[in-house]
Amino acid sequence: MARGDKHLGPLFYPAMYGYFLVPKDEITRRVSHLQKALRENRIESSLWIQKIDVFYLTGTLQRSYLFVPATGEPIHLIKKDFKRGAHESRIDLKVPIRSRKEIPGVIRRYYGKTPKTVGLEADVLPYQEWYGMAEMFDGSQLKDVSALLLHQRSIKSPYEISIMAKAGRVGQQVYEHGRKILKEGMTEIAFAGEMMAKAFELGHEGLLRMRSLNDESYCWHVLSGESGGIVSYLNAPMGGLGLSPAFPVGASRKPIHRYEPVMVDFGICLRGYQIDETRMFCVGTLPNRYRDLYRSIVRIHHAILSAARPGVRGKDLFETGMEVAEKEGIADIYLGPPGNKVTFVGHGIGLEINDPPFIAKRDITPLKEGMTFALEPKLVLEGETAIGIEDTVVVTRGGIRRLTPLRQTVFHAP
Amino acid sequence: MARGDKHLGPLFYPAMYGYFLVPKDEITRRVSHLQKALRENRIESSLWIQKIDVFYLTGTLQRSYLFVPATGEPIHLIKKDFKRGAHESRIDLKVPIRSRKEIPGVIRRYYGKTPKTVGLEADVLPYQEWYGMAEMFDGSQLKDVSALLLHQRSIKSPYEISIMAKAGRVGQQVYEHGRKILKEGMTEIAFAGEMMAKAFELGHEGLLRMRSLNDESYCWHVLSGESGGIVSYLNAPMGGLGLSPAFPVGASRKPIHRYEPVMVDFGICLRGYQIDETRMFCVGTLPNRYRDLYRSIVRIHHAILSAARPGVRGKDLFETGMEVAEKEGIADIYLGPPGNKVTFVGHGIGLEINDPPFIAKRDITPLKEGMTFALEPKLVLEGETAIGIEDTVVVTRGGIRRLTPLRQTVFHAP
Repeated sequence: MARGDKHLGPLFYPAMYGYFLVPKDEITRRVSHLQKALRENRIESSLWIQKIDVFYLTGTLQRSYLFVPATGEPIHLIKKDFKRGAHESRIDLKVPIRSRKEIPGVIRRYYGKTPKTVGLEADVLPYQEWYGMAEMFDGSQLKDVSALLLHQRSIKSPYEISIMAKAGRVGQQVYEHGRKILKEGMTEIAFAGEMMAKAFELGHEGLLRMRSLNDESYCWHVLSGESGGIVSYLNAPMGGLGLSPAFPVGASRKPIHRYEPVMVDFGICLRGYQIDETRMFCVGTLPNRYRDLYRSIVRIHHAILSAARPGVRGKDLFETGMEVAEKEGIADIYLGPPGNKVTFVGHGIGLEINDPPFIAKRDITPLKEGMTFALEPKLVLEGETAIGIEDTVVVTRGGIRRLTPLRQTVFHAP
Repeated sequence: MARGDKHLGPLFYPAMYGYFLVPKDEITRRVSHLQKALRENRIESSLWIQKIDVFYLTGTLQRSYLFVPATGEPIHLIKKDFKRGAHESRIDLKVPIRSRKEIPGVIRRYYGKTPKTVGLEADVLPYQEWYGMAEMFDGSQLKDVSALLLHQRSIKSPYEISIMAKAGRVGQQVYEHGRKILKEGMTEIAFAGEMMAKAFELGHEGLLRMRSLNDESYCWHVLSGESGGIVSYLNAPMGGLGLSPAFPVGASRKPIHRYEPVMVDFGICLRGYQIDETRMFCVGTLPNRYRDLYRSIVRIHHAILSAARPGVRGKDLFETGMEVAEKEGIADIYLGPPGNKVTFVGHGIGLEINDPPFIAKRDITPLKEGMTFALEPKLVLEGETAIGIEDTVVVTRGGIRRLTPLRQTVFHAP
């Protein structure tokens, strides 16, 4: 962004101010992998609309559509901003459009015909949008192809893992900063804000993204004392009080007291890739009872991580956790209060915070090398507090590697 | 949240730590207004699923479904957390459910029959969800009812307006804080983070919400100098560089230089209600050329606000803005660079940041008393900078009232 040049256009973005483009070979590999999956599933073509899927397959989040046939050249139809999207996209064939009505025509022109089958994202596309597509592709069969791409996305490339590891190092700095600034009497939300400011300074992209109509992800879960004992709508063992019935999760206006367990679950997003992690904080020394419970949770964490390797299923790891929880005598409070437990202890993570795989009671997908997930064994003493730990890891040939290098001891503020 | 009580349940939320429930009469009035609209449109019943619509009609964001028949008692089916949802909801009839499969049965039991017509939110419900509903209500006709509720939501009650005015006062403190901490050499994102921390401390709920598949709203637009001259995928005159192609909008790692125009567009959310506002900042005195452009933009702002009153259409106000832009000699850069302009200058705001009404080229809905909107005339010098102003206002009987009490002069940092 050289100063003084009045019409820089988009060409100054790469590498300036840490604004890096996605490498072309990364995108080429992703698209050809998807094309192979389409052929294997006998789906003639796919049209990608949701921004995260489009970003994954093109390298840009500009408003655009990506047409990927099972065989032939992908077409990137870019609406806004075309210049910027064309610069960032690693797809060769880029076509500017003004309205989505142009989609069928552009596809006919470059693909040579109207596809008989078009795969779309049925899990996220609003009915209105799907219906609009059905009208535009009148006579073609529409199919749901989200699962294909989600499965592909669950296995990360070395490039993706390196970004997540970098996000993990940012998280480490944010947590260490948190330990330094935490003071008795600070409200949960003020503490969350200070961590947020540090994270922003280090390049955190602020929003965590979740593939869901009604769930929304955010990075300021700070639950102190009794806040940790409050459940909410989230599919999580605890939710916290939050700020109002309109935001009934995460940090509240409750002041943080001395000797209270403070659960800090603060994810980081860099270049679209997220890591998730949780540690316990305390002003002063954590009382023995809570320290013992924390040790039990850490033992569950280690037991699951030691058992994780390619071929093992989420279900198996979930059971490992349950067994250790029984042995530790905390089964009743593990993963939520009695009658209100969640049935997972970990979730895939990457461009979205609910990527596959799931370390869950019913997940039978075997782990594969390159999968990344956040493991978060937690316990809830209803009305009293929550204790837990969370790390993001990548599955390697022989086991797992942690991407979140935080120390696993309690973060004691002076 | 009395300390020491181990099983507080949800009863301690109200009023503690500023966690206020929505007043019952507010919800009663909203539901009966909706029922009237259903009758007028001859729609037998509606089922609300999207969290913001459900919150608006019940007072809780817990995971739940609200069935509203045109005539008869609404049924609130609450999944998670039931205790908390039942406490927060202002609907009388609350039914716990474990799975959405129970919906038709619960409706039959309490409504007495299967409705022949069920209204759903076609603009936001994913196809998969819609399809699931179609299977569950096999034999019933499904209709889109989003527009009904969006129209209703566009007119705010005195209660809603009072919360938005409070959010405006929080915004004022955040902007004044920003002026004090802004320093030459700070990166845009670090400055955004510091404003965020202040906003959090004052109870800002962090996320802005938008009714959209691919747009996401956030509150850290800080665009300094050339950043303001960069467009992005957003439906906005400018977008900024952002942090990466995965987050290509808002604050970047660019350092803020002396004498650069710094556009700060930072919304605030309190109890679910948002206000949106923009002011220009500058380290040192804003150069004359930019100051003159800022004055032109402020004149457009005032001209539109002076013309706004019940009965006037968005289209009329949009034209007023265009006329003043012509007179000021800035039509070429007004609302975006040549060839890349947006066709609106304001948007409704409330629980979502793209509520109706729209102050837009083609919006023919007449303004009504109680409507709230953010007016944001802006100009873009491509590759150079952006200049603009934004306030959130409510339409009153005789005109408008500002809900964002920020002073309209440039915020000069020392």
